[in-house]
Amino acid sequence: MSGLTVALDAMGGDFGPQVTVPASVQALLQYPELKVILFGDQSAITSQLSLLNQSEHPRISIVHCEHVIGNDTRPSQALRRSQGSSMRMALEAVAAGQADACVSAGNTGALMALSRFILKLLPGVDRPALVSAIPTRTDNKTWLLDLGANVSCDADTLFQFAVMGAVLAEQGLPHSPRVALLNIGEEEIKGNDLVKRCSEMLTESPDINYVGYLEGDQLYSGQADVIVCDGFVGNVSLKTSEGVANLFINQFKQAISRNPLKQLIAKWLFSDLFDRLKRLNPDQYNGASLLGLRGIVVKSHGSADTTAFANAIGEAVHEVKRQVPTKISDRLEEVLLERHY
Amino acid sequence: MSGLTVALDAMGGDFGPQVTVPASVQALLQYPELKVILFGDQSAITSQLSLLNQSEHPRISIVHCEHVIGNDTRPSQALRRSQGSSMRMALEAVAAGQADACVSAGNTGALMALSRFILKLLPGVDRPALVSAIPTRTDNKTWLLDLGANVSCDADTLFQFAVMGAVLAEQGLPHSPRVALLNIGEEEIKGNDLVKRCSEMLTESPDINYVGYLEGDQLYSGQADVIVCDGFVGNVSLKTSEGVANLFINQFKQAISRNPLKQLIAKWLFSDLFDRLKRLNPDQYNGASLLGLRGIVVKSHGSADTTAFANAIGEAVHEVKRQVPTKISDRLEEVLLERHY
Repeated sequence: MSGLTVALDAMGGDFGPQVTVPASVQALLQYPELKVILFGDQSAITSQLSLLNQSEHPRISIVHCEHVIGNDTRPSQALRRSQGSSMRMALEAVAAGQADACVSAGNTGALMALSRFILKLLPGVDRPALVSAIPTRTDNKTWLLDLGANVSCDADTLFQFAVMGAVLAEQGLPHSPRVALLNIGEEEIKGNDLVKRCSEMLTESPDINYVGYLEGDQLYSGQADVIVCDGFVGNVSLKTSEGVANLFINQFKQAISRNPLKQLIAKWLFSDLFDRLKRLNPDQYNGASLLGLRGIVVKSHGSADTTAFANAIGEAVHEVKRQVPTKISDRLEEVLLERHY
Repeated sequence: MSGLTVALDAMGGDFGPQVTVPASVQALLQYPELKVILFGDQSAITSQLSLLNQSEHPRISIVHCEHVIGNDTRPSQALRRSQGSSMRMALEAVAAGQADACVSAGNTGALMALSRFILKLLPGVDRPALVSAIPTRTDNKTWLLDLGANVSCDADTLFQFAVMGAVLAEQGLPHSPRVALLNIGEEEIKGNDLVKRCSEMLTESPDINYVGYLEGDQLYSGQADVIVCDGFVGNVSLKTSEGVANLFINQFKQAISRNPLKQLIAKWLFSDLFDRLKRLNPDQYNGASLLGLRGIVVKSHGSADTTAFANAIGEAVHEVKRQVPTKISDRLEEVLLERHY
């Protein structure tokens, strides 16, 4: 494979170049074919590079940007006043074919709005989706979408999410990705009309390995490779998981905080456990991908550290190698043709 | 206070009389004013009572029932074919004024449908809600509703949930219950239209201490006393919490499973932690209440043990003492009058 180029919003996230620059260097070590373009404040970036003795890295280039989109900028404002910002210029590099993917830890709403505006939707896609891999009890990963790109959607949109999620999940799987719909089990007609209608559509699609409904307590069970829901439910669900994880860690700390001996023993007992727990906040660890666009965009968690941001760059590299947008477009066409004939 | 009577569906749940009978005896010890009526198979109940040497308990009576509603009975079937079942007869005892509340660990969908059919809705209530207290980092509890009684609802319904939740939450609080709406933060106009409209209604109601939106990761933060959402979101959120808790416990066990010494030390060091973790599945611990009905109904978790089922009976006792349905009805009338004038 010839070189591939990732455009990085070097200013995004809670730490900006302090994290994005060392993460780039880390990713370049890992992927010898990778080039990165750092979009952001030239002097902040170069000073980070010289701290790392990488001022002359042959696979790093810098594009100076005057502006940064703030974390509280609303998407509509971002659309109007983002000219010259690091996030927008990174996306424009992808649209212009100068880069193969964009990675940003910046404002999620702005990134979604700008991505859609600059890169445009793939044919057959009504709305882009935000997707992330969550860990499971069986040590596989499960892709959950949508995570908040859309607060309300119809059955067709959910169906498109299922197809897009399956394309992302199929890599490395020995079987066709098992696709499930997130639902609840209490009501007479299980779940709402939206979910029911999408379930019928998935049942009728021979190319999708649809395994039916899953409930919230089965999210982390490894019973599906792709779990589909609307953005409101997905966002609440992912953030609830984060809340419970924090509650656990908090209770754990409380249980040992007053006793140094307990602390020492806990470290010995559970050192590998703590590492695992850190990965329970999946988008912190891996980033979340925007699917359905004519280009690859990975959103890293705002508070990502160097390793997490490097992982998000890695996710972008994998999606470029697999040509995910083309695959999604082809698959949607196939599935929709099947539905119509 | 004179005696109060709770009608128990003795056959509901995974263990039936094996759990419900000892739990009743436990609750009777705790509440000297309590009487219970056990609805179910007479011989199964009496054999459990004699095992406990309580065959002649002066505050226990038994009503024999021929049928039990199965866990996979659909609510519509339950409505048609539930005559003479333990769940239905327990609810009928409440409707007839022979009991002050009903507690069941049986089929949730059937219990919701039958409760509404037999007890009827309070005036001003469009839909009943299922509510449970969740634990928080600050050791307070937060009441979350709806947990799945309604898969879709409008802003008025959410508003009614807020009022009903506040009535339940206010006991023992030194301040007016802080009411929040569960929402997501990604979209331009934060959240969907439904949540936005309800937020406006709550803002305009001087009698409700509305504190705004919370996101999923703040569910367990203790920042609100009542958190309101629709039943689909609430159910997914609560079950997701259960899934994450199980994932944690599973990882814990894995971390120590291959080493008996580690296991021993972990038990010695962290016994209180494990107790806390068990309570993270809140409706397992306390039961969930159905609000908005002309009577008190508490749903215990199907897999509840004796302590958990006794706690659900305790919840029913508290609601009877506080006359929760009357309070809800009065409060709704006040708040709605305020809105109209």
